[in-house]
Amino acid sequence: MEINFKPIAFVKNSRSVPTDDHWESIIAEIELAEHIPTEAFSGISTFSHLEIIYHFDKLNKNEMVYAGHPRGNKNYPLTGIFGQRKKDRPNAIGLCTAQLLEHAGRTIKVKYLDAIDGTPVLDIKPVFKEFQPKGEIRQPEWVSDLMKNYW
Amino acid sequence: MEINFKPIAFVKNSRSVPTDDHWESIIAEIELAEHIPTEAFSGISTFSHLEIIYHFDKLNKNEMVYAGHPRGNKNYPLTGIFGQRKKDRPNAIGLCTAQLLEHAGRTIKVKYLDAIDGTPVLDIKPVFKEFQPKGEIRQPEWVSDLMKNYW
Repeated sequence: MEINFKPIAFVKNSRSVPTDDHWESIIAEIELAEHIPTEAFSGISTFSHLEIIYHFDKLNKNEMVYAGHPRGNKNYPLTGIFGQRKKDRPNAIGLCTAQLLEHAGRTIKVKYLDAIDGTPVLDIKPVFKEFQPKGEIRQPEWVSDLMKNYW
Repeated sequence: MEINFKPIAFVKNSRSVPTDDHWESIIAEIELAEHIPTEAFSGISTFSHLEIIYHFDKLNKNEMVYAGHPRGNKNYPLTGIFGQRKKDRPNAIGLCTAQLLEHAGRTIKVKYLDAIDGTPVLDIKPVFKEFQPKGEIRQPEWVSDLMKNYW
């Protein structure tokens, strides 16, 4: 069973090499792909945040590692790929909740998107308060350490 | 440009017909697909919440409507597809933040997942506090009305 997707938009920003950290300063434009009409963005600026689903298209096709130490750091526990957010994962799907700064025609401008220049976007969904996590979020200690320079 | 994906897991639950509302009572199991080793779930129970990215595989292939009134309700403003979360969308990707209840071997049990029985899952990511929306979430009034019976 295979599922075929076509990019609905592309990312434009100043970062062309995959990098782990310091994303806060990167402002990105997302421009609709040719086959998507401009009206697909109608009313989008009534939302403050968007979930951007994208494709890590620059990955090397190495053999998949299904469990490992996050960022190869032996101080972090051995963790399965679905307990990590790293890009080398089955289907190579990225997901980030970005802040919408501006909308003009076929382009939106966003902050807090961790995707490099040229990245194909698969979907954009508005953040609804009603879809926020229910109850308190619990995560292991290594996450805060790994994320300390991310933004 | 086409991108090919293969399901990494499948949803099992008691809802077999696509339905808009009342998801809170539906507990789902997500079982890894055959080609994914069990270790992909190692350590997953150290997280309370998971982002489940899935494929709306039961959609009719009607012509895509790129802007419309959410749920066909004329009281809601005309809104582009990327300002809505409805399933009839380019690439038919669903996304929901579920609460993890239990992990045993190749299966996890979750609450607050709005996908029906048999749904192919494309990715599972742990919720990191550091990836939560930055700043206050703003959304138009129609969203709370549309979502009032969702959970």
